[in-house]
Formats: sequence, structure tokens, C-alpha cells
Amino acid sequence: MKQETFDSALRSTWHQVSKMYNKEAGKFDSTMAMGFALLSIDTEGTPSTTLGPKMGMEPTSLSRLLNTMETRKLIYRSQNPSDGRSILIHLTAFGKEKREDSKAVVLHFNAEIEKRLNEKKIQHFFEVMQCIKEQALEFEHFTTPTKTNAL
Amino acid sequence: MKQETFDSALRSTWHQVSKMYNKEAGKFDSTMAMGFALLSIDTEGTPSTTLGPKMGMEPTSLSRLLNTMETRKLIYRSQNPSDGRSILIHLTAFGKEKREDSKAVVLHFNAEIEKRLNEKKIQHFFEVMQCIKEQALEFEHFTTPTKTNAL
Repeated sequence: MKQETFDSALRSTWHQVSKMYNKEAGKFDSTMAMGFALLSIDTEGTPSTTLGPKMGMEPTSLSRLLNTMETRKLIYRSQNPSDGRSILIHLTAFGKEKREDSKAVVLHFNAEIEKRLNEKKIQHFFEVMQCIKEQALEFEHFTTPTKTNAL
Repeated sequence: MKQETFDSALRSTWHQVSKMYNKEAGKFDSTMAMGFALLSIDTEGTPSTTLGPKMGMEPTSLSRLLNTMETRKLIYRSQNPSDGRSILIHLTAFGKEKREDSKAVVLHFNAEIEKRLNEKKIQHFFEVMQCIKEQALEFEHFTTPTKTNAL
């Protein structure tokens, strides 16, 4: 392959984008993860157990993030009425306000990109992304060693 | 925007790809970061100070990673002959062997993706990636508050 590999383009572009989001969030002493969490919590409250997979975060990092957000009065917790063992995460009024800010940044950034592209390029971009995702799901280079049966 | 946003496609695809690389590396009790480090160290040795920016890693995480790799006898350190204060990172023979493995996985994965696409789609994909990267570099949503001059 003469050009850059698909995965290195992905890595470096995602790196650049998250740097930008962290810079914008940093203007309010916030982080990209916090903005992303605000956008992942819906208005009726979201079970804490579904947030992790939604955000692709490990339970420990997620719980640390939610604690910070609770201290900053962006969210509060309540017991799930339909499942006593599970906790719902809700946005406070302040959290909802900040959620709108996060949404505005994301929409603005994506609109700026869209402006500079045509339909065909956009369509191909999403097609290639989908292809990479599917390939990553089924790809295997090293075969898993088969376990020899004990007698 | 009807479709997914550019950044969420980036995030979720990169997430899927790194999961796959970690799975492959895990078959040898390794990680994607270790494989990426092997690929980032060249045969004449690489100054440790250039590795962090190259890999987009913070000094503390990088130094932890290099320590693990030294323990596993994948790398060794030497003093930089052209700069006494800087350290060069070298691959051991075992490290070079493992580097070939990492390279094979990356090339195989990228070849599988390329197989399923045509020239035009690939070209557009890299063009859009470049456009996102440039946009991320110059984008600003919230203006940095101007500091009022003290009298």
C-alpha cells in the first residue's frame, strides 16, 4: 500500500478530533468525556449500566467520571422504579444547559466539515467506515491455539 | 444531518479496530500499545523523547509501557551518542521478531479492507479524513475569553 494505512488515518484523525474537543471543553474546565456523557444521558434518565457500553468506557473510569459530574452538579442519581437494583442517571437543570453547549459544539464542527465536502465523498466515507468496522469484527490473523483434549 | 456524525463514526470505528488489535495482541499476552510501540521504534534506535509524540502518548503512560517492554526483553535502552542527556530505545532480537508479527497483522488487516473497496472510495475516504483533521486543527466554537487589561 503506497498510501497511509486505514487504521493509522483513523488513529491520527481521532486523536486530532479528541484534542480539539478537549480544548473546547477545557475552556470551561471540562473534558470531552464529560461532554460525551452529557450527550449520552437522555432526559428521562439513563440506567448507569447502559452508559458504559454506550460510551465504550470501563466501569471504573465511568464511575470516576460520574462522581466528578455529580460533584459539579451536572447529574444526580435515583433508584430505577422498574428495577430496584439499578440506578438511573439524570441531568440537573445545569447539566441540561451544558448538554446544549456540547451539542452545539458537535453540530457546529460536523457542519463545518460537511461544508467542505460533496455528497459522493461523504457517502463513500461512511461506506468505508462501515467496511472497516465489519472487517474489524470478523478479522483474525493469529488462529487461537486449539486446546488438546485431556484423556 | 440525517446520517451519523463524522466524529461518532470515527470514535466507534476506531474503538472497534483497537478492540480487534488488542484481541490479536492478547493471544500473546501483549497489547495494541505494545505492538504499536514496536512499529514506532526503528532499527537504529529511537530517542525516547520522540516516541511519545509519535505515538500520541503521555510521558507517564509511555514510561510504564517501556518498562514492561524492557522486562519482557523486547527493548533495551542506551545513551544517545549525539546527546548525552537523551536515551535511545532499541529493539532486541526478540523485539524485532515480534515487530514482524505486528507488521504482518497490520498489513493483513489493511489488505482485507482494501480488497472490499474500489480506488474511488479509498481516495475519498482519505480525502475526508484529511479534511476532518484540518478542520479539527483550526476549529473553535467558544471564543477564548479576552483578558481585560489591568489599569
